[in-house]
Amino acid sequence: MSSAFKPEQARLPPARALSTPPFKIGLCQLSVTPDKERNIKHARKAIEEAAQKGAQLVVLPEIWNSPYSNDSFPLYAEDIDAGHDASPSTAMLAEISGQLRITIVGGSIPERCGDQLYNTCCVFGTDGKLKAKHRKIHLFDIDIPGEITFMESKTLTAGETPTIVDTGAHLLCYPGAFNMTTGPLHWELLQRARAVDNQLYVATCSPARDTGASYIAWGHSTLVGPFGEVLATTEHNEDIIVAEIDYSILEQRRMNLPLAKQRRGDLYQLVDIQRLDAH
Amino acid sequence: MSSAFKPEQARLPPARALSTPPFKIGLCQLSVTPDKERNIKHARKAIEEAAQKGAQLVVLPEIWNSPYSNDSFPLYAEDIDAGHDASPSTAMLAEISGQLRITIVGGSIPERCGDQLYNTCCVFGTDGKLKAKHRKIHLFDIDIPGEITFMESKTLTAGETPTIVDTGAHLLCYPGAFNMTTGPLHWELLQRARAVDNQLYVATCSPARDTGASYIAWGHSTLVGPFGEVLATTEHNEDIIVAEIDYSILEQRRMNLPLAKQRRGDLYQLVDIQRLDAH
Repeated sequence: MSSAFKPEQARLPPARALSTPPFKIGLCQLSVTPDKERNIKHARKAIEEAAQKGAQLVVLPEIWNSPYSNDSFPLYAEDIDAGHDASPSTAMLAEISGQLRITIVGGSIPERCGDQLYNTCCVFGTDGKLKAKHRKIHLFDIDIPGEITFMESKTLTAGETPTIVDTGAHLLCYPGAFNMTTGPLHWELLQRARAVDNQLYVATCSPARDTGASYIAWGHSTLVGPFGEVLATTEHNEDIIVAEIDYSILEQRRMNLPLAKQRRGDLYQLVDIQRLDAH
Repeated sequence: MSSAFKPEQARLPPARALSTPPFKIGLCQLSVTPDKERNIKHARKAIEEAAQKGAQLVVLPEIWNSPYSNDSFPLYAEDIDAGHDASPSTAMLAEISGQLRITIVGGSIPERCGDQLYNTCCVFGTDGKLKAKHRKIHLFDIDIPGEITFMESKTLTAGETPTIVDTGAHLLCYPGAFNMTTGPLHWELLQRARAVDNQLYVATCSPARDTGASYIAWGHSTLVGPFGEVLATTEHNEDIIVAEIDYSILEQRRMNLPLAKQRRGDLYQLVDIQRLDAH
């Protein structure tokens, strides 16, 4: 192999030690309306309720401050980097996370940065500070004539980098708004598969279903364990799920089925191109 | 990026043109006994029945000529490369495929090659000639105390290369023997996920369930379409599934959800290390 290709430098950092004690995650399946101010207040109330029920990590849905539509994205977009008045949605998340001393994976909101719009997720730590900002890297374009057509790429720009909070991942968080076609086909399937393939937890958080909206969300926010088992889920109405995550189970599952050892790095490798470029 | 790293040379060849007309696949969920001669005759009969029902491609289960156990593998293993009397199981497949003018993905049998044993799948073309021989590259090791413990790696050696028959793949064939633990957890989940992730057909073929065996197979041989939809399946008893595969649907699904275009080769790539080494 070319000596310039050092795949070990291009792979993800080793996983973080699994010493975190069990903790509770809260998934807020929020109803979303055209009234942004109401959406922000409503999300705040749900976060408080989840925290009251013991959640130390709270996840919000994809596009929770705006209707999910290409017409709405530019109108509801916020300049997250400018912050404060320019981004009332993330200002609320910063304030409440610090106040309640919880971590928030703030679903996503339309972000304006210069002339571009992104579908952006902000993560706030227990100190109320921004820990990470992730711009959706795979935009959602679908065209099933007679069923559903939606092109995020019409208005949005794709992000340029994956996002790992801390080093190593034991939990994948997907704020997501599947629809009445992809929901029954793929929502549970894909989250369970990602959990099994990677032997970690997967949490998804959807907006509640609004049959009057132009894009009807599937709902069914869910927490999946490392064997692909559904640990907690809900239907399509507004709901708050609070469920326990115990990372020690990951160690057990990785002994049960030693997938990491069985991977054939001599035959194939998933390479992080940016990391490779950096070396 | 290092100029020595040419990822485009390390990726799979482009998919074959989707011009093949619709055809029927047969999945023979066979009962397997300790009597090898009977297993071979029995498989032959099932292949004939599948062909009679119109199957042009027939798939057999994992380890169909021998009980699935580390004690049995050495005793039932055949020298496939020597052929003829040294491998009555593959000799039968060669003969019957040429006779019926069908393609056979011959499940798998324990293969002896020198001092090594492999879990090996042979593919025979309509001319009765061996098209491909695949040695399982990810051996199955599982240890769930109190539920199931099985270590293929105790007796078997892992293969050294992936196998693509013709160039480009639109159908993944998995002869597989999941068990009463991994069956309900992962059998349908993983095949549906692989179909959706790759937007192609997935066919699985299991031995029928024998509750008297030391390793109890899950059964449930299945054909899955490119949206993850189960097109045909069965329970755990012996059965022959014959179902249609229409590659033109793949084109449609790939337009519905243009995943290949959405992949971010600038951020990550799945690299074929052997192909990379060869350049």
